[in-house]
Amino acid sequence: MIDRARELDAADPMAKFRSRFTLPGGIIYLDGNSLGALPKATPDVMQRVIEDEWGEGLIRSWNDASWFGMAARIGGKIAPLIGARENEVIACDTVSVNLFKLIAAALQMRPGRKTILSEPGNFPTDIYMIEGLEAQGLAKQKLAKRGDLIAALDDDVALLMLTHAHYKTGEVFDMAALTKAAHDSGALVLWDLSHSTGALPVDLNAAGADFATGCGYKYLCGGPGAPAFTFVADRHHGSLKQPLTGWFGHARPFAFSDTYEAAPGIEQLQCGTSPVLGLAALEVGVDIIAELGPDRLFAKSQALSEFFLECIEERGLDLDLISPRSSDQRGSQLSFRHEHAYAICQALIARGVIGDFRDPDILRLGFAPAYLSFANMSEAARHLAEVLDAGEWQHEEFNRRAAVT
Amino acid sequence: MIDRARELDAADPMAKFRSRFTLPGGIIYLDGNSLGALPKATPDVMQRVIEDEWGEGLIRSWNDASWFGMAARIGGKIAPLIGARENEVIACDTVSVNLFKLIAAALQMRPGRKTILSEPGNFPTDIYMIEGLEAQGLAKQKLAKRGDLIAALDDDVALLMLTHAHYKTGEVFDMAALTKAAHDSGALVLWDLSHSTGALPVDLNAAGADFATGCGYKYLCGGPGAPAFTFVADRHHGSLKQPLTGWFGHARPFAFSDTYEAAPGIEQLQCGTSPVLGLAALEVGVDIIAELGPDRLFAKSQALSEFFLECIEERGLDLDLISPRSSDQRGSQLSFRHEHAYAICQALIARGVIGDFRDPDILRLGFAPAYLSFANMSEAARHLAEVLDAGEWQHEEFNRRAAVT
Repeated sequence: MIDRARELDAADPMAKFRSRFTLPGGIIYLDGNSLGALPKATPDVMQRVIEDEWGEGLIRSWNDASWFGMAARIGGKIAPLIGARENEVIACDTVSVNLFKLIAAALQMRPGRKTILSEPGNFPTDIYMIEGLEAQGLAKQKLAKRGDLIAALDDDVALLMLTHAHYKTGEVFDMAALTKAAHDSGALVLWDLSHSTGALPVDLNAAGADFATGCGYKYLCGGPGAPAFTFVADRHHGSLKQPLTGWFGHARPFAFSDTYEAAPGIEQLQCGTSPVLGLAALEVGVDIIAELGPDRLFAKSQALSEFFLECIEERGLDLDLISPRSSDQRGSQLSFRHEHAYAICQALIARGVIGDFRDPDILRLGFAPAYLSFANMSEAARHLAEVLDAGEWQHEEFNRRAAVT
Repeated sequence: MIDRARELDAADPMAKFRSRFTLPGGIIYLDGNSLGALPKATPDVMQRVIEDEWGEGLIRSWNDASWFGMAARIGGKIAPLIGARENEVIACDTVSVNLFKLIAAALQMRPGRKTILSEPGNFPTDIYMIEGLEAQGLAKQKLAKRGDLIAALDDDVALLMLTHAHYKTGEVFDMAALTKAAHDSGALVLWDLSHSTGALPVDLNAAGADFATGCGYKYLCGGPGAPAFTFVADRHHGSLKQPLTGWFGHARPFAFSDTYEAAPGIEQLQCGTSPVLGLAALEVGVDIIAELGPDRLFAKSQALSEFFLECIEERGLDLDLISPRSSDQRGSQLSFRHEHAYAICQALIARGVIGDFRDPDILRLGFAPAYLSFANMSEAARHLAEVLDAGEWQHEEFNRRAAVT
């Protein structure tokens, strides 16, 4: 298959973008869905921000280097990737903190309703953030399996909160259908786009979504622990109330007033001082991913994962795929269930094929479309076959558990 | 006075630390209390973290480069600066978000009480974060002037929340006395150390404080928008409940369980994924400031501001000092009230003397002890005298208002 892979790479109009990223020698990186690769432009940008803007400009850079505008500017660049308007997205805080703001806002916009509906097995932090509000007596958590979600939309549900592409299986929800069902029942909708943004097309406004948040350090290549982003449909900007009312969300932060007054637009979703260094790195990644655009990214993502499946099929590997078989119904990943997934993952890493393991028995391979090649697919499949055929995963060193991401 | 300044600099055992910082030519930087200067070591550290740890190490660096341990490790280094034990401090989120966690935690630890007591004119975000919980129906804000605070401690006060060194005047609270008074009334105490940490000695445990938070980008020189830190006295680690229950605060984040279980120690104060780039920059600043230590820093800070006052007195400047005259009762700053404070500040900046303006009429000059010299004081006083004596601040260009920090 390596010849076929080379042909596909030669014909791939996106192949040239690979050179925009630092890709360590000897590594096939199938974990860009956990931490995106480093754009080659990032170190120079960071040097400029650190040495010129911080070191030389000092406090003046809040105005002179437009640090004040960064969060909204980056949000505006993320917007086209998720079907939002420029004024509906801002980069700030973490996904977890943004979930809290939006869940709490939904509760205040739906007085009398207390239930936050999600699914069991959603990304843990999503569920945990409901629990925080539950412990405060403000929310009631309700989890229903995928097929039962619409039936679970009773008249106490204030918010339906789901992750668009599942972190473990990659399965994608029908955003428009679920948003409509929730609205029909009087609930608001919040989409976690952490595993979607920069990998597959999302159209929040076509679906009529109310809220969304997503991760900056996965497909957006913003660096480890990059700031997250938040979307609020502009029809809610006037009535929204979120409880993390910090000074950067104030209409006039430098009036130093004793009374909070929310900024009129998406800036009201900010809380504390913008993390300038993190935002600067995030912007580099966002610029590349926005240049590629969601349609090209998704087409490449589909082509990569389909080719990978062909490669393992050709090698006669009979793996238990838990991701949807149709690439239209999954994010940019393939997950396989295997009793020895942990050790297989470790054996692959030892060979330079970096995927990840998800408890208890999932081998998760991510196909970041911006910088992977078809040759990577063919080689990764070869390594996987060799690990399995030779029982390489049985080595003791691959079976010692450590913290993994 | 410049001769005297040179003598003082020559005799100053801390003078050599000045060379650890990037200090732009032609600038006297009296705003390190707003954004600390860039340590010279920071760019190389950031290059290593970005190019080696992120670029080459990729996802493996969470373990191999100890990204998981950074937040607690940096907290442990901040601890001696604030009279805390190593296991009581962690670096995470922003001051605003940490205030929210701690206020909410206090409310859950004092059931039946709803009042959060602070003072009018506290740093705005501190008051705003109470308002957020007030809008959720969980808290009641009460503001009392300094002299009336102890009398205001009634049996509905769950938390006394104050900023140790006032951002505008620099006036310092008697931490031990107020903590004791609050405890006597059954309330908990939260100290905002944003304008203290790295400039003056703080002894949280000697005072018996319950909670604290503080800023990473001021005297700690962690860079613009650096992560903040949080202190929780270890006697509360078992009973504390904070509502921002994100996955990084979980006892076993990578078990991916549907149920939140708080980490046993200070890690439970974390919420979302650690901001690695921001933490890496913060650690460089913390290392230098911790090496200097709070006593040496405070002695230098006092010597600098006293010498500055001598300099302006010698020049016959009659300025309205609103900071306490005794250097034992103020943070590392001097603030002056003047009808034309804004224009004076702008005129000084045009001369390369960077202080800041605080609405409506305050000129605030900060004396970051790690990198300022006595010659800086003498020169700054000369510029201030020239601006005032020549009425330079009257120029139209200095009277056009723009956003300032």
